[in-house]
Amino acid sequence: MSEIRKADSFHFRVNPFEDDFSGRLSWSVLGKHVLACAENHAAARGFDRLTLNGRRFLWVLSRMAFEMQEWPHRGEEYVITTWVRSYYRYFTDRCFDICRSDGKLLGRVFTIWAMIDEESRKPQVLEGLFGHTFDPYIDAERPCISQPFSRIRMREEAAPCCRRTTYFSDIDENNHVNSIRYIEFLLDTFPKPLLESRDVSRLEIAYHSESYCGDSLSFYAQGDADDGPVQMQVRKNAGADPAQGETVCHALISFAPPRQAEVLHPKE
Amino acid sequence: MSEIRKADSFHFRVNPFEDDFSGRLSWSVLGKHVLACAENHAAARGFDRLTLNGRRFLWVLSRMAFEMQEWPHRGEEYVITTWVRSYYRYFTDRCFDICRSDGKLLGRVFTIWAMIDEESRKPQVLEGLFGHTFDPYIDAERPCISQPFSRIRMREEAAPCCRRTTYFSDIDENNHVNSIRYIEFLLDTFPKPLLESRDVSRLEIAYHSESYCGDSLSFYAQGDADDGPVQMQVRKNAGADPAQGETVCHALISFAPPRQAEVLHPKE
Repeated sequence: MSEIRKADSFHFRVNPFEDDFSGRLSWSVLGKHVLACAENHAAARGFDRLTLNGRRFLWVLSRMAFEMQEWPHRGEEYVITTWVRSYYRYFTDRCFDICRSDGKLLGRVFTIWAMIDEESRKPQVLEGLFGHTFDPYIDAERPCISQPFSRIRMREEAAPCCRRTTYFSDIDENNHVNSIRYIEFLLDTFPKPLLESRDVSRLEIAYHSESYCGDSLSFYAQGDADDGPVQMQVRKNAGADPAQGETVCHALISFAPPRQAEVLHPKE
Repeated sequence: MSEIRKADSFHFRVNPFEDDFSGRLSWSVLGKHVLACAENHAAARGFDRLTLNGRRFLWVLSRMAFEMQEWPHRGEEYVITTWVRSYYRYFTDRCFDICRSDGKLLGRVFTIWAMIDEESRKPQVLEGLFGHTFDPYIDAERPCISQPFSRIRMREEAAPCCRRTTYFSDIDENNHVNSIRYIEFLLDTFPKPLLESRDVSRLEIAYHSESYCGDSLSFYAQGDADDGPVQMQVRKNAGADPAQGETVCHALISFAPPRQAEVLHPKE
Protein backbone atom coordinates (compact mmCIF):
# COMPACT_ATOMS: atom_id res chain seq x y z
CA MET A 1 0.00 0.00 0.00
CA SER A 2 1.52 3.29 -1.04
CA GLU A 3 1.73 5.99 1.60
CA ILE A 4 -0.54 9.00 1.18
CA ARG A 5 1.37 12.23 0.67
CA LYS A 6 -0.21 15.05 2.63
CA ALA A 7 1.92 18.00 1.54
CA ASP A 8 3.20 19.07 -1.89
CA SER A 9 6.19 21.28 -2.54
CA PHE A 10 6.47 23.59 -5.54
CA HIS A 11 9.75 25.08 -6.72
CA PHE A 12 10.11 28.65 -7.95
CA ARG A 13 12.81 31.13 -8.86
CA VAL A 14 12.53 34.92 -8.57
CA ASN A 15 12.69 35.84 -12.23
CA PRO A 16 13.47 39.34 -13.45
CA PHE A 17 10.34 41.51 -13.08
CA GLU A 18 8.85 39.22 -10.45
CA ASP A 19 10.64 41.38 -7.88
CA ASP A 20 9.76 44.76 -6.42
CA PHE A 21 11.77 48.00 -6.29
CA SER A 22 14.24 46.37 -3.86
CA GLY A 23 14.99 43.35 -6.05
CA ARG A 24 13.05 41.01 -3.78
CA LEU A 25 10.05 38.83 -4.64
CA SER A 26 6.94 41.01 -4.99
CA TRP A 27 3.78 40.54 -2.92
CA SER A 28 1.83 40.10 -6.10
CA VAL A 29 3.88 37.17 -7.38
CA LEU A 30 4.23 35.51 -3.97
CA GLY A 31 0.49 35.79 -3.30
CA LYS A 32 -0.53 34.41 -6.68
CA HIS A 33 1.94 31.54 -6.39
CA VAL A 34 0.52 30.69 -2.95
CA LEU A 35 -2.99 30.51 -4.44
CA ALA A 36 -1.72 28.48 -7.40
CA CYS A 37 -0.04 25.98 -5.05
CA ALA A 38 -3.33 25.57 -3.17
CA GLU A 39 -5.15 24.88 -6.41
CA ASN A 40 -2.54 22.48 -7.74
CA HIS A 41 -2.33 20.58 -4.42
CA ALA A 42 -6.12 20.22 -4.30
CA ALA A 43 -6.38 19.27 -7.99
CA ALA A 44 -3.81 16.49 -7.55
CA ARG A 45 -6.13 14.99 -4.90
CA GLY A 46 -9.38 15.56 -6.76
CA PHE A 47 -10.90 18.24 -4.52
CA ASP A 48 -10.08 21.47 -6.36
CA ARG A 49 -13.70 21.83 -7.42
CA LEU A 50 -16.82 19.70 -7.42
CA THR A 51 -19.87 19.01 -9.56
CA LEU A 52 -22.76 17.18 -7.86
CA ASN A 53 -26.16 16.59 -9.50
CA GLY A 54 -25.42 19.33 -12.03
CA ARG A 55 -24.52 21.88 -9.34
CA ARG A 56 -21.02 23.33 -9.36
CA PHE A 57 -19.10 24.18 -6.22
CA LEU A 58 -16.03 26.39 -5.95
CA TRP A 59 -13.51 27.23 -3.26
CA VAL A 60 -13.43 30.82 -2.08
CA LEU A 61 -10.74 32.34 0.08
CA SER A 62 -12.10 33.63 3.37
CA ARG A 63 -8.98 34.69 5.29
CA MET A 64 -5.27 34.83 4.70
CA ALA A 65 -2.34 35.60 7.04
CA PHE A 66 1.31 36.04 6.04
CA GLU A 67 4.26 36.05 8.42
CA MET A 68 7.47 36.84 6.58
CA GLN A 69 10.91 36.84 8.17
CA GLU A 70 12.86 37.20 4.95
CA TRP A 71 12.19 37.59 1.23
CA PRO A 72 13.96 35.77 -1.61
CA HIS A 73 15.95 38.02 -3.96
CA ARG A 74 15.97 38.12 -7.76
CA GLY A 75 17.59 34.97 -9.13
CA GLU A 76 17.11 32.98 -5.92
CA GLU A 77 15.12 29.79 -5.72
CA TYR A 78 12.40 29.17 -3.17
CA VAL A 79 9.97 26.41 -2.33
CA ILE A 80 6.32 26.68 -1.30
CA THR A 81 4.97 23.67 0.60
CA THR A 82 1.25 23.39 1.26
CA TRP A 83 -1.04 21.03 3.18
CA VAL A 84 -4.55 20.95 4.65
CA ARG A 85 -4.49 21.43 8.40
CA SER A 86 -8.15 20.79 9.25
CA TYR A 87 -11.74 21.11 8.13
CA TYR A 88 -14.80 21.89 10.18
CA ARG A 89 -18.37 22.46 9.01
CA TYR A 90 -18.08 25.34 6.48
CA PHE A 91 -14.34 25.91 6.47
CA THR A 92 -11.00 24.30 5.87
CA ASP A 93 -7.60 25.56 7.03
CA ARG A 94 -4.68 25.33 4.63
CA CYS A 95 -1.10 26.18 5.54
CA PHE A 96 2.03 27.06 3.59
CA ASP A 97 5.72 27.18 4.36
CA ILE A 98 7.96 29.35 2.18
CA CYS A 99 11.57 28.17 2.33
CA ARG A 100 14.86 28.83 0.66
CA SER A 101 16.09 25.93 -1.47
CA ASP A 102 18.48 24.99 1.39
CA GLY A 103 15.45 24.55 3.66
CA LYS A 104 15.72 27.79 5.64
CA LEU A 105 12.24 29.05 6.56
CA LEU A 106 11.48 32.47 5.00
CA GLY A 107 7.84 32.79 6.00
CA ARG A 108 4.51 31.12 6.58
CA VAL A 109 0.98 31.57 5.32
CA PHE A 110 -2.30 30.46 6.91
CA THR A 111 -5.51 30.45 4.88
CA ILE A 112 -9.18 29.63 5.49
CA TRP A 113 -11.41 28.56 2.61
CA ALA A 114 -15.12 27.89 2.14
CA MET A 115 -16.78 26.01 -0.69
CA ILE A 116 -19.71 27.83 -2.25
CA ASP A 117 -22.48 26.80 -4.62
CA GLU A 118 -21.63 28.65 -7.84
CA GLU A 119 -25.27 29.73 -8.34
CA SER A 120 -26.45 30.58 -4.83
CA ARG A 121 -22.97 31.73 -3.64
CA LYS A 122 -23.84 30.05 -0.29
CA PRO A 123 -21.15 28.18 1.67
CA GLN A 124 -21.67 24.46 2.02
CA VAL A 125 -21.11 22.04 4.89
CA LEU A 126 -17.91 20.32 3.82
CA GLU A 127 -18.70 16.86 5.23
CA GLY A 128 -21.98 17.00 3.32
CA LEU A 129 -20.17 17.54 0.02
CA PHE A 130 -17.03 15.50 0.45
CA GLY A 131 -17.85 12.95 3.20
CA HIS A 132 -14.50 12.11 4.70
CA THR A 133 -12.48 12.50 1.50
CA PHE A 134 -10.12 14.95 3.18
CA ASP A 135 -9.34 12.79 6.21
CA PRO A 136 -6.28 10.96 4.85
CA TYR A 137 -4.71 14.26 3.79
CA ILE A 138 -5.11 16.23 7.02
CA ASP A 139 -1.89 17.11 8.79
CA ALA A 140 -2.76 18.84 12.06
CA GLU A 141 0.66 18.27 13.60
CA ARG A 142 2.93 20.10 11.20
CA PRO A 143 4.05 23.48 12.62
CA CYS A 144 2.32 26.53 11.16
CA ILE A 145 1.59 30.15 12.11
CA SER A 146 0.91 30.04 15.84
CA GLN A 147 -1.69 32.82 15.97
CA PRO A 148 -3.36 32.78 12.60
CA PHE A 149 -5.98 35.50 13.02
CA SER A 150 -6.70 38.50 15.16
CA ARG A 151 -9.93 40.32 15.80
CA ILE A 152 -10.03 43.38 13.55
CA ARG A 153 -12.23 46.13 14.91
CA MET A 154 -12.44 49.46 13.13
CA ARG A 155 -14.04 52.45 14.78
CA GLU A 156 -16.70 53.55 12.33
CA GLU A 157 -15.86 57.26 12.41
CA ALA A 158 -12.65 56.90 10.42
CA ALA A 159 -12.34 58.97 7.24
CA PRO A 160 -10.93 57.27 4.13
CA CYS A 161 -7.19 57.65 3.63
CA CYS A 162 -7.46 56.79 -0.04
CA ARG A 163 -10.00 56.07 -2.79
CA ARG A 164 -9.36 54.31 -6.05
CA THR A 165 -11.32 52.84 -8.91
CA THR A 166 -10.88 49.24 -9.99
CA TYR A 167 -10.02 48.45 -13.59
CA PHE A 168 -10.20 45.48 -15.92
CA SER A 169 -6.59 44.55 -15.16
CA ASP A 170 -7.53 44.10 -11.47
CA ILE A 171 -10.05 41.31 -12.08
CA ASP A 172 -9.33 37.63 -12.49
CA GLU A 173 -10.98 34.57 -13.93
CA ASN A 174 -13.79 34.82 -11.35
CA ASN A 175 -14.74 38.23 -12.75
CA HIS A 176 -14.02 39.94 -9.42
CA VAL A 177 -11.03 41.86 -8.10
CA ASN A 178 -8.29 39.34 -7.43
CA SER A 179 -7.72 38.49 -3.72
CA ILE A 180 -4.03 39.30 -3.90
CA ARG A 181 -4.64 42.62 -5.64
CA TYR A 182 -6.24 43.92 -2.41
CA ILE A 183 -2.92 43.38 -0.63
CA GLU A 184 -1.24 45.67 -3.17
CA PHE A 185 -4.09 48.20 -2.84
CA LEU A 186 -3.70 48.21 0.96
CA LEU A 187 0.08 48.65 0.85
CA ASP A 188 -0.29 51.40 -1.77
CA THR A 189 -2.03 53.56 0.86
CA PHE A 190 1.20 53.86 2.91
CA PRO A 191 3.84 56.53 2.18
CA LYS A 192 6.54 55.43 -0.28
CA PRO A 193 9.43 56.11 2.18
CA LEU A 194 7.82 53.74 4.69
CA LEU A 195 7.39 50.99 2.08
CA GLU A 196 10.96 51.54 0.89
CA SER A 197 12.52 51.30 4.32
CA ARG A 198 10.48 48.70 6.18
CA ASP A 199 9.22 45.21 5.40
CA VAL A 200 5.77 44.00 6.25
CA SER A 201 6.37 41.39 8.95
CA ARG A 202 2.77 40.24 9.26
CA LEU A 203 -0.30 40.80 7.14
CA GLU A 204 -3.81 39.46 7.74
CA ILE A 205 -6.75 39.93 5.44
CA ALA A 206 -10.37 38.82 5.88
CA TYR A 207 -12.54 38.87 2.77
CA HIS A 208 -16.20 39.82 3.24
CA SER A 209 -17.64 40.59 -0.18
CA GLU A 210 -16.51 40.77 -3.78
CA SER A 211 -15.77 43.92 -5.73
CA TYR A 212 -15.97 44.23 -9.49
CA CYS A 213 -14.48 46.14 -12.40
CA GLY A 214 -15.39 49.82 -12.10
CA ASP A 215 -16.16 49.80 -8.36
CA SER A 216 -14.92 52.69 -6.27
CA LEU A 217 -12.99 51.43 -3.25
CA SER A 218 -12.47 53.50 -0.08
CA PHE A 219 -9.63 52.65 2.28
CA TYR A 220 -9.74 53.32 6.02
CA ALA A 221 -6.78 52.93 8.35
CA GLN A 222 -6.37 53.18 12.13
CA GLY A 223 -3.12 52.89 14.04
CA ASP A 224 0.46 53.88 13.47
CA ALA A 225 3.05 51.79 11.63
CA ASP A 226 5.55 52.69 14.39
CA ASP A 227 3.33 51.44 17.18
CA GLY A 228 1.77 48.04 16.58
CA PRO A 229 -0.31 46.85 13.67
CA VAL A 230 -2.36 49.15 11.44
CA GLN A 231 -6.02 48.12 11.17
CA MET A 232 -7.55 48.61 7.76
CA GLN A 233 -10.87 48.33 6.05
CA VAL A 234 -11.93 48.51 2.40
CA ARG A 235 -15.49 49.51 1.51
CA LYS A 236 -16.95 49.66 -1.97
CA ASN A 237 -19.00 52.47 -3.47
CA ALA A 238 -19.13 54.18 -0.08
CA GLY A 239 -19.66 57.73 -1.34
CA ALA A 240 -18.94 60.54 1.11
CA ASP A 241 -20.36 58.77 4.16
CA PRO A 242 -18.03 56.11 5.60
CA ALA A 243 -21.01 54.33 7.17
CA GLN A 244 -22.28 53.70 3.64
CA GLY A 245 -21.01 51.07 1.27
CA GLU A 246 -20.40 47.38 1.74
CA THR A 247 -17.28 46.13 3.52
CA VAL A 248 -15.06 44.29 1.05
CA CYS A 249 -12.29 43.27 3.44
CA HIS A 250 -10.56 43.97 6.73
CA ALA A 251 -6.82 43.78 7.21
CA LEU A 252 -4.13 44.09 9.85
CA ILE A 253 -0.61 45.08 8.78
CA SER A 254 2.54 45.08 10.95
CA PHE A 255 5.82 46.55 9.81
CA ALA A 256 9.26 45.26 10.77
CA PRO A 257 11.95 47.68 12.02
CA PRO A 258 13.72 49.71 9.29
CA ARG A 259 15.98 47.70 7.01
CA GLN A 260 19.71 48.29 6.92
CA ALA A 261 20.65 50.47 3.95
CA GLU A 262 22.97 47.87 2.46
CA VAL A 263 20.18 45.34 2.29
CA LEU A 264 18.06 47.71 0.23
CA HIS A 265 20.08 47.43 -2.97
CA PRO A 266 21.82 44.07 -2.76
CA LYS A 267 23.04 44.24 -6.35
CA GLU A 268 25.16 47.33 -5.76
CA MET B 1 35.14 24.48 -31.46
CA SER B 2 31.69 24.63 -29.98
CA GLU B 3 29.03 26.32 -32.06
CA ILE B 4 27.72 29.64 -30.76
CA ARG B 5 24.05 29.47 -29.83
CA LYS B 6 22.24 32.58 -30.96
CA ALA B 7 18.77 32.00 -29.55
CA ASP B 8 17.61 30.72 -26.15
CA SER B 9 14.25 29.13 -25.41
CA PHE B 10 12.51 29.39 -22.05
CA HIS B 11 9.70 27.07 -20.99
CA PHE B 12 6.62 28.24 -19.08
CA ARG B 13 3.24 26.97 -18.00
CA VAL B 14 0.14 29.10 -17.47
CA ASN B 15 -0.29 28.64 -13.72
CA PRO B 16 -3.53 29.44 -11.91
CA PHE B 17 -3.80 33.23 -11.43
CA GLU B 18 -1.40 33.92 -14.28
CA ASP B 19 -4.46 33.99 -16.54
CA ASP B 20 -7.04 36.69 -17.14
CA PHE B 21 -10.85 36.57 -16.83
CA SER B 22 -11.02 34.20 -19.84
CA GLY B 23 -8.57 31.65 -18.44
CA ARG B 24 -5.86 32.65 -20.91
CA LEU B 25 -2.37 33.94 -20.16
CA SER B 26 -2.58 37.55 -18.99
CA TRP B 27 -0.80 40.45 -20.71
CA SER B 28 0.96 41.23 -17.48
CA VAL B 29 2.53 37.80 -17.10
CA LEU B 30 3.37 37.41 -20.80
CA GLY B 31 4.97 40.85 -20.94
CA LYS B 32 7.08 40.34 -17.84
CA HIS B 33 8.20 36.91 -19.01
CA VAL B 34 9.24 38.41 -22.35
CA LEU B 35 11.38 41.00 -20.53
CA ALA B 36 12.81 38.32 -18.23
CA CYS B 37 13.77 36.16 -21.24
CA ALA B 38 15.59 39.15 -22.75
CA GLU B 39 17.50 39.68 -19.52
CA ASN B 40 18.36 36.00 -19.06
CA HIS B 41 19.46 35.60 -22.70
CA ALA B 42 21.72 38.67 -22.43
CA ALA B 43 23.08 37.65 -19.02
CA ALA B 44 24.06 34.21 -20.35
CA ARG B 45 26.22 36.01 -22.96
CA GLY B 46 27.63 38.65 -20.62
CA PHE B 47 25.88 41.71 -22.05
CA ASP B 48 22.94 42.20 -19.70
CA ARG B 49 24.62 45.23 -18.11
CA LEU B 50 28.03 46.84 -18.19
CA THR B 51 30.44 48.64 -15.88
CA LEU B 52 33.28 50.56 -17.54
CA ASN B 53 35.71 52.80 -15.64
CA GLY B 54 33.28 52.98 -12.72
CA ARG B 55 30.34 54.02 -14.91
CA ARG B 56 27.31 51.74 -15.04
CA PHE B 57 25.25 51.20 -18.16
CA LEU B 58 21.76 49.72 -18.32
CA TRP B 59 19.43 48.55 -21.07
CA VAL B 60 16.20 50.49 -21.48
CA LEU B 61 13.29 49.41 -23.61
CA SER B 62 12.51 51.89 -26.36
CA ARG B 63 9.77 50.15 -28.39
CA MET B 64 7.80 46.95 -28.23
CA ALA B 65 5.36 45.33 -30.70
CA PHE B 66 3.22 42.24 -30.05
CA GLU B 67 1.42 40.23 -32.72
CA MET B 68 -0.70 37.52 -31.14
CA GLN B 69 -2.66 34.94 -33.10
CA GLU B 70 -3.59 32.78 -30.15
CA TRP B 71 -3.13 32.74 -26.36
CA PRO B 72 -2.16 29.76 -24.22
CA HIS B 73 -4.81 28.68 -21.70
CA ARG B 74 -4.46 27.93 -18.00
CA GLY B 75 -2.47 24.73 -17.51
CA GLU B 76 -0.91 24.84 -21.00
CA GLU B 77 2.79 25.01 -21.61
CA TYR B 78 4.43 27.55 -23.87
CA VAL B 79 7.91 28.45 -24.99
CA ILE B 80 9.46 31.89 -25.50
CA THR B 81 12.48 31.98 -27.81
CA THR B 82 14.56 35.14 -28.06
CA TRP B 83 17.50 36.32 -30.11
CA VAL B 84 19.22 39.57 -31.15
CA ARG B 85 18.35 40.55 -34.71
CA SER B 86 20.69 43.53 -35.21
CA TYR B 87 22.39 46.49 -33.62
CA TYR B 88 23.06 49.91 -35.08
CA ARG B 89 24.57 52.96 -33.37
CA TYR B 90 22.25 53.59 -30.36
CA PHE B 91 19.85 50.68 -30.70
CA THR B 92 19.56 46.94 -30.85
CA ASP B 93 16.59 44.91 -32.13
CA ARG B 94 15.58 41.82 -30.20
CA CYS B 95 12.91 39.38 -31.34
CA PHE B 96 10.77 36.75 -29.64
CA ASP B 97 8.66 33.82 -30.80
CA ILE B 98 5.92 32.52 -28.51
CA CYS B 99 5.07 28.93 -29.33
CA ARG B 100 3.00 26.10 -27.97
CA SER B 101 5.08 23.21 -26.67
CA ASP B 102 4.29 21.33 -29.94
CA GLY B 103 5.95 24.17 -31.85
CA LYS B 104 2.84 25.93 -33.14
CA LEU B 105 3.46 29.67 -33.34
CA LEU B 106 1.13 31.67 -31.03
CA GLY B 107 2.62 35.09 -31.49
CA ARG B 108 5.69 37.23 -32.01
CA VAL B 109 7.28 40.18 -30.25
CA PHE B 110 9.73 42.76 -31.63
CA THR B 111 11.63 45.06 -29.27
CA ILE B 112 14.16 47.90 -29.59
CA TRP B 113 16.54 48.67 -26.75
CA ALA B 114 19.07 51.38 -25.97
CA MET B 115 21.86 51.27 -23.41
CA ILE B 116 22.01 54.32 -21.17
CA ASP B 117 24.57 55.66 -18.73
CA GLU B 118 22.93 55.16 -15.34
CA GLU B 119 23.95 58.67 -14.17
CA SER B 120 23.45 60.83 -17.25
CA ARG B 121 20.53 58.69 -18.60
CA LYS B 122 22.01 59.32 -22.10
CA PRO B 123 21.99 56.56 -24.73
CA GLN B 124 25.40 55.25 -25.76
CA VAL B 125 26.82 54.20 -29.13
CA LEU B 126 26.75 50.42 -28.83
CA GLU B 127 29.92 49.71 -30.82
CA GLY B 128 31.73 52.14 -28.53
CA LEU B 129 30.71 50.18 -25.45
CA PHE B 130 30.78 46.62 -26.70
CA GLY B 131 33.05 46.65 -29.74
CA HIS B 132 31.84 43.72 -31.81
CA THR B 133 30.84 41.52 -28.86
CA PHE B 134 27.35 41.07 -30.31
CA ASP B 135 28.44 40.01 -33.79
CA PRO B 136 28.58 36.23 -33.24
CA TYR B 137 25.09 36.27 -31.71
CA ILE B 138 23.25 38.26 -34.37
CA ASP B 139 20.62 36.34 -36.30
CA ALA B 140 19.22 38.61 -38.99
CA GLU B 141 17.74 35.74 -41.03
CA ARG B 142 15.30 34.20 -38.59
CA PRO B 143 11.69 35.20 -39.40
CA CYS B 144 10.17 37.85 -37.14
CA ILE B 145 7.36 40.42 -37.22
CA SER B 146 7.36 41.73 -40.78
CA GLN B 147 6.31 45.30 -40.02
CA PRO B 148 7.61 46.01 -36.55
CA PHE B 149 6.59 49.63 -36.06
CA SER B 150 4.17 52.17 -37.42
CA ARG B 151 4.24 55.91 -37.27
CA ILE B 152 1.93 57.02 -34.46
CA ARG B 153 0.56 60.50 -34.94
CA MET B 154 -1.93 61.92 -32.49
CA ARG B 155 -3.84 65.07 -33.25
CA GLU B 156 -3.12 67.35 -30.32
CA GLU B 157 -6.72 68.44 -29.74
CA ALA B 158 -7.84 65.12 -28.26
CA ALA B 159 -9.36 65.20 -24.76
CA PRO B 160 -8.24 62.54 -22.29
CA CYS B 161 -10.43 59.43 -22.17
CA CYS B 162 -9.12 58.49 -18.73
CA ARG B 163 -6.89 59.71 -15.94
CA ARG B 164 -5.33 57.63 -13.22
CA THR B 165 -2.74 57.99 -10.50
CA THR B 166 0.21 55.62 -10.27
CA TYR B 167 0.88 53.75 -7.05
CA PHE B 168 3.78 51.99 -5.38
CA SER B 169 2.61 48.63 -6.76
CA ASP B 170 3.04 49.99 -10.33
CA ILE B 171 6.77 50.64 -10.02
CA ASP B 172 9.58 48.16 -10.48
CA GLU B 173 13.21 47.77 -9.52
CA ASN B 174 14.13 50.80 -11.63
CA ASN B 175 11.89 52.99 -9.44
CA HIS B 176 9.67 53.89 -12.40
CA VAL B 177 6.34 52.57 -13.64
CA ASN B 178 7.00 49.16 -15.16
CA SER B 179 6.97 49.04 -18.99
CA ILE B 180 4.40 46.27 -19.08
CA ARG B 181 2.11 48.03 -16.62
CA TYR B 182 1.45 50.69 -19.30
CA ILE B 183 -0.02 48.00 -21.53
CA GLU B 184 -2.53 47.15 -18.80
CA PHE B 185 -3.25 50.85 -18.23
CA LEU B 186 -3.91 51.33 -21.97
CA LEU B 187 -6.21 48.31 -22.23
CA ASP B 188 -8.06 49.41 -19.07
CA THR B 189 -9.30 52.48 -20.95
CA PHE B 190 -11.45 50.32 -23.27
CA PRO B 191 -15.00 49.22 -22.32
CA LYS B 192 -15.18 45.90 -20.48
CA PRO B 193 -17.52 44.28 -23.09
CA LEU B 194 -14.98 45.02 -25.82
CA LEU B 195 -12.12 43.51 -23.82
CA GLU B 196 -14.29 40.48 -22.98
CA SER B 197 -15.31 39.77 -26.53
CA ARG B 198 -12.26 40.64 -28.64
CA ASP B 199 -8.57 39.85 -28.48
CA VAL B 200 -5.85 42.37 -29.13
CA SER B 201 -4.26 41.16 -32.36
CA ARG B 202 -1.48 43.71 -32.48
CA LEU B 203 -0.11 46.16 -29.94
CA GLU B 204 2.76 48.61 -30.39
CA ILE B 205 4.15 50.84 -27.71
CA ALA B 206 6.91 53.46 -27.92
CA TYR B 207 8.35 54.69 -24.64
CA HIS B 208 9.38 58.35 -24.45
CA SER B 209 9.88 59.23 -20.80
CA GLU B 210 9.57 57.59 -17.41
CA SER B 211 6.75 58.09 -14.94
CA TYR B 212 7.05 57.61 -11.20
CA CYS B 213 5.02 56.67 -8.15
CA GLY B 214 2.31 59.29 -7.56
CA ASP B 215 2.28 60.71 -11.10
CA SER B 216 -1.06 61.51 -12.66
CA LEU B 217 -1.37 59.88 -16.09
CA SER B 218 -3.75 61.12 -18.78
CA PHE B 219 -4.78 58.79 -21.61
CA TYR B 220 -5.73 59.99 -25.08
CA ALA B 221 -7.23 57.80 -27.79
CA GLN B 222 -8.09 58.36 -31.45
CA GLY B 223 -9.74 55.86 -33.75
CA ASP B 224 -12.36 53.18 -33.42
CA ALA B 225 -11.70 49.59 -32.39
CA ASP B 226 -14.08 48.48 -35.19
CA ASP B 227 -12.22 50.35 -37.87
CA GLY B 228 -8.47 49.90 -37.82
CA PRO B 229 -6.02 50.47 -35.00
CA VAL B 230 -6.65 52.86 -32.11
CA GLN B 231 -3.87 55.40 -31.62
CA MET B 232 -3.08 56.22 -28.02
CA GLN B 233 -0.93 58.55 -26.02
CA VAL B 234 -0.10 58.77 -22.32
CA ARG B 235 0.99 62.08 -20.80
CA LYS B 236 2.03 62.66 -17.23
CA ASN B 237 0.89 65.47 -14.94
CA ALA B 238 -0.91 67.09 -17.86
CA GLY B 239 -3.47 69.01 -15.81
CA ALA B 240 -6.53 70.30 -17.66
CA ASP B 241 -4.68 71.27 -20.84
CA PRO B 242 -3.81 68.30 -23.11
CA ALA B 243 -0.96 70.31 -24.64
CA GLN B 244 0.69 70.33 -21.20
CA GLY B 245 2.54 67.48 -19.59
CA GLU B 246 5.30 65.27 -20.90
CA THR B 247 4.55 62.38 -23.26
CA VAL B 248 5.26 59.09 -21.52
CA CYS B 249 4.40 56.76 -24.40
CA HIS B 250 2.53 56.33 -27.64
CA ALA B 251 0.71 53.15 -28.59
CA LEU B 252 -1.26 51.56 -31.41
CA ILE B 253 -3.77 48.84 -30.59
CA SER B 254 -5.66 46.62 -33.06
CA PHE B 255 -8.47 44.30 -32.05
CA ALA B 256 -9.27 40.97 -33.67
CA PRO B 257 -12.85 40.13 -34.69
CA PRO B 258 -15.15 39.04 -31.83
CA ARG B 259 -14.34 35.66 -30.33
CA GLN B 260 -16.75 32.76 -30.54
CA ALA B 261 -18.74 32.42 -27.32
CA GLU B 262 -17.57 28.85 -26.71
CA VAL B 263 -13.95 29.92 -26.74
CA LEU B 264 -14.61 32.44 -24.00
CA HIS B 265 -15.06 29.95 -21.17
CA PRO B 266 -13.18 26.83 -22.26
CA LYS B 267 -13.51 25.20 -18.85
CA GLU B 268 -17.30 25.03 -18.96
